[in-house]
Amino acid sequence: MSKPFIACGIMSGTSRDGIDVAIVEIGGTYPHNRIRHIHSEDYHYPPSVRNLLMKEPEELAFQDVVGMRFMLGRLYGEKALKTLGNAGLKPADIDCIGSHGQTLVHLPGGVKIGWRTVPSTLQVGSGAVIAHVTGITTVSDFRSADIAVGGEGAPLVPVYDYVTLRSTKKSRIALNIGGIANLTAVPKGASPEDIVAFDTGPGNCMIDTAVDLLTGGEVNCDLNGEMAQRGEPDQEELRELLKHPYFRRKPPKSTGWEVFGRPFTRSVLEHMLAKGLSHSEIMRTLTEFTCESIAVAVRRHVAPLMDIDEIIVTGGGSRNPVIMEGLKARFPGSKVMTGEAVGIPSLTREACAFAYLGYLCLKRIPANIVSQSYGLAPAILGSIHPTP
Amino acid sequence: MSKPFIACGIMSGTSRDGIDVAIVEIGGTYPHNRIRHIHSEDYHYPPSVRNLLMKEPEELAFQDVVGMRFMLGRLYGEKALKTLGNAGLKPADIDCIGSHGQTLVHLPGGVKIGWRTVPSTLQVGSGAVIAHVTGITTVSDFRSADIAVGGEGAPLVPVYDYVTLRSTKKSRIALNIGGIANLTAVPKGASPEDIVAFDTGPGNCMIDTAVDLLTGGEVNCDLNGEMAQRGEPDQEELRELLKHPYFRRKPPKSTGWEVFGRPFTRSVLEHMLAKGLSHSEIMRTLTEFTCESIAVAVRRHVAPLMDIDEIIVTGGGSRNPVIMEGLKARFPGSKVMTGEAVGIPSLTREACAFAYLGYLCLKRIPANIVSQSYGLAPAILGSIHPTP
Repeated sequence: MSKPFIACGIMSGTSRDGIDVAIVEIGGTYPHNRIRHIHSEDYHYPPSVRNLLMKEPEELAFQDVVGMRFMLGRLYGEKALKTLGNAGLKPADIDCIGSHGQTLVHLPGGVKIGWRTVPSTLQVGSGAVIAHVTGITTVSDFRSADIAVGGEGAPLVPVYDYVTLRSTKKSRIALNIGGIANLTAVPKGASPEDIVAFDTGPGNCMIDTAVDLLTGGEVNCDLNGEMAQRGEPDQEELRELLKHPYFRRKPPKSTGWEVFGRPFTRSVLEHMLAKGLSHSEIMRTLTEFTCESIAVAVRRHVAPLMDIDEIIVTGGGSRNPVIMEGLKARFPGSKVMTGEAVGIPSLTREACAFAYLGYLCLKRIPANIVSQSYGLAPAILGSIHPTP
Repeated sequence: MSKPFIACGIMSGTSRDGIDVAIVEIGGTYPHNRIRHIHSEDYHYPPSVRNLLMKEPEELAFQDVVGMRFMLGRLYGEKALKTLGNAGLKPADIDCIGSHGQTLVHLPGGVKIGWRTVPSTLQVGSGAVIAHVTGITTVSDFRSADIAVGGEGAPLVPVYDYVTLRSTKKSRIALNIGGIANLTAVPKGASPEDIVAFDTGPGNCMIDTAVDLLTGGEVNCDLNGEMAQRGEPDQEELRELLKHPYFRRKPPKSTGWEVFGRPFTRSVLEHMLAKGLSHSEIMRTLTEFTCESIAVAVRRHVAPLMDIDEIIVTGGGSRNPVIMEGLKARFPGSKVMTGEAVGIPSLTREACAFAYLGYLCLKRIPANIVSQSYGLAPAILGSIHPTP
């Protein structure tokens, strides 16, 4: 039997608050890889870095952006080393790092340059610097190659969901509830091209933003859903929210903070306050909105394709009992569980996925399976920074 | 004997006027590689692209810069395919592309981000897009890895000069006269760490800028040195120019258009015109300034290290008879010749060098020999974008 491959993944999400680092062991060959989680940690960005990242791209000086490539590369490398050390591992034990980088721009629909429209994406955090700091071969810039073949450059994690959840006996959904919620449906016996993956709508973004606005910035999330637990949802408001045009669109589709973020949440909140709802009622309504919009998406776009045996929930939302209970109530015929039940760390799943994407790049395996399922060309995702 | 490795290099210089593409065949093993030039071509940027690139970085919208990565990647890929076709080759014949990209920022001294100073560099033209357009494994982003180890990220071409000019019998200088002039001194029997490489000062930048200013933009270079040929140099002005502090600095040193470009040339020109010099006298003085500043650099920093058997001149300056004669007159004991005499295409030498740097990256050979000669860590230069 060949020596297992050990990969480290580094993920910085769109909330721009920090870095997740995960170490996984990969055995077997694609698509029959077995991925075992070894260790993971999360780190907050230092305040000075976070302040820079919270600026809008147009507020950043161009040279800030250039400098960020190197500054974040160093930070990522240092956090990877720290995580390895805490896991009792040395750089020589690690076969590769897969680093997503911090997205500054993701515009698969294109940016206008003169008369041209050019689909574009940019993640910063130089792989060359990570490779130097750690001494480990580093793969970065995963999204460009999918944009190059005409894809959306997202989602990229489904190949990891497919490999970790594929089964000949069970049809499963990987449901990730971060700021935005997304899912990958893996029908039993599926080939990579049979999977369906898309954003369902808001995850925690409206809940977190509402708490922040209602408490004047004192609190930034509804820990354990405690506020929501004390209130009842307003059904009329819930029905209104579910009329949002995003839910009528068919997959492939994706959304973001620019749709369900602060301005939208603020306007919803003003309407609910004007109606006289209590803070708890508002929080419960928004939490049920997340659950119901997920349920609507599953009923419309997944249920027609497969029975749903299991729903594996990851992301911060998996830690909110109101969301977990809300999902269980809506899917009585399915087993709803967190990632941990199947060996996936719920809070650092994406870092695990990018560790695996690094492995796939080094093995020259095209990983853009969502784009391929829409007839686009296979692409090997990532660029490789070798070390001496 | 193993099949020779065929590499394609793509270079866009700091003058931002276009793209050079070169195809070379590489035999042997490092540092005993034999590099044979097969074919090369140069292309001007389309006017719309050039207009964008001529903006100062601070004039560019951040999204322009992001879009440029993809737009230039496509353009580079298309020009590579065109060049291959003209050479009677197919993508399947080519083992790799090495693409330098267009430098938008190169600040090894660092950019300020908040209280940090972060050495930075950015070349755009996505390797992922080039790899997709051509179907050829592409290496790009060569400078970041040298910056990461604390190097200047430049010069990177000396490893190519070393391999092409190394000899047990002759001490040679590779002298490249582009906008800025630079040299690599390769003493006979040298190891990579024995070479000396630095910018000597202005190449064609002041000559070209002066013609442009004197003709109100009608003419942009002194073709064949015809204007300079009709005049005599003003010795007093020449002495003044040679007092520029750059010439007193010791290597390692580098300079650029920001020092010897338009503003500096304009002030020199105003002074000479006020003095009553004719256009031909001005052009001759500036041309002799290029020759003499090269001669000063060689006498001070190279002659103490080695006899100079041969000076191999490349770049646009190798096409200016006044420069070539001026160099021959200043080095009577050396053989002064153009790159062609030793099989190096004078005008696309850098594209050949980046083809070779692509090969070195794929072979995992650290190519930052200048930084290594100053005690910095070896770095494998470039990031690899594989193709399915």
